[in-house]
Amino acid sequence: MTSYAQTPRTRLIRLPKRGHYDQDTVHAILDEALICHIGTQMKDRPMVQPTLHWRDGNRLYIHGSSKNGLFQALLDGAEACITVTLVDALVLARSAFHHSVNYRSVMIFAAARKVTDEAERMAAFKGFIEKVEPGRWDKVRAPNKQEDKATAVLCFDLTEVSAKVRTGCPIDDLEDYSIDVWAGLVPLKTVQGEPIKDTNTTPPA
Amino acid sequence: MTSYAQTPRTRLIRLPKRGHYDQDTVHAILDEALICHIGTQMKDRPMVQPTLHWRDGNRLYIHGSSKNGLFQALLDGAEACITVTLVDALVLARSAFHHSVNYRSVMIFAAARKVTDEAERMAAFKGFIEKVEPGRWDKVRAPNKQEDKATAVLCFDLTEVSAKVRTGCPIDDLEDYSIDVWAGLVPLKTVQGEPIKDTNTTPPA
Repeated sequence: MTSYAQTPRTRLIRLPKRGHYDQDTVHAILDEALICHIGTQMKDRPMVQPTLHWRDGNRLYIHGSSKNGLFQALLDGAEACITVTLVDALVLARSAFHHSVNYRSVMIFAAARKVTDEAERMAAFKGFIEKVEPGRWDKVRAPNKQEDKATAVLCFDLTEVSAKVRTGCPIDDLEDYSIDVWAGLVPLKTVQGEPIKDTNTTPPA
Repeated sequence: MTSYAQTPRTRLIRLPKRGHYDQDTVHAILDEALICHIGTQMKDRPMVQPTLHWRDGNRLYIHGSSKNGLFQALLDGAEACITVTLVDALVLARSAFHHSVNYRSVMIFAAARKVTDEAERMAAFKGFIEKVEPGRWDKVRAPNKQEDKATAVLCFDLTEVSAKVRTGCPIDDLEDYSIDVWAGLVPLKTVQGEPIKDTNTTPPA
């Protein structure tokens, strides 16, 4: 099992047993989640943006408009914190204090690298489309020169990274187990609904 | 319809029609979402943490350990960006470039206020439990003095806030509508599974 090195910034201090540093755990969370929340310090404020992400080995990719202000700040050298969170269950305890959620999250600290190499850019676009629907890349029109130019692709090395996972039942105080209230887990999951075919034959207004 | 005032930091520049500033839209997103991602600049890094949130009127609450480092930074005066995101559908287009997701998100810029008033603290704890399961507060044991002390409750005024919403079908280039590929929406939603009763009679190890 290959693991990421723990650093003073990724090592969990409180509840250390929730910390996971092995690549399998980290990669599985990143791959299951569709979106991440990426944050940095802008000139006049902190900023946290949701965006789609995908992974290739130990590299995480995001993309967006070349004019995105947060992307610009990152490309000017601001460090990013990228957080990915999957919520698996409500944890209903017998005491208010011990209510929680079961979750799997990943936190990455990294500087952004602007992807400029055309082969890496196309591989990145393909990685995104294939994550959304495996096999789709070959069916859709690839980005043209103008679209390519309008799109910033950012890459983050998975180096300073950790996962945090809570599983299992509530952990109440011993004396509270006699309280007459339903306690346990309410599982939560994201499901796909029935696909809705786009019947337009021209772009909607 | 009451709306939040737009500020230079909340006004959407690109795709302005995705911007919504009315309280109804903002509140509905905050209330439907279980977790937010809160970010700020720490001494040595940007930090984005997922956490449960709840709303009371124009105030957003979060809580956590008094020892949480991000909370400490906020209480020392660092401004927060709080982002809440609901993903409603994959948007599968005919061109790679026009793939997207339908989503509803809220972004809040605010300073944290530490909630110290005991009545407001208890109302906040109740607000959290009632969001998780309406009617639950009266059935569970309320926080005792020690738990109360261990818990930081932070409040953020909803003042500088906006929502961003994408709905509807892909918007492809006219010439791409003839491409023979399935295009449309794959709805995504979070559903509750069958509750799992906690049969423990003592705290698990």
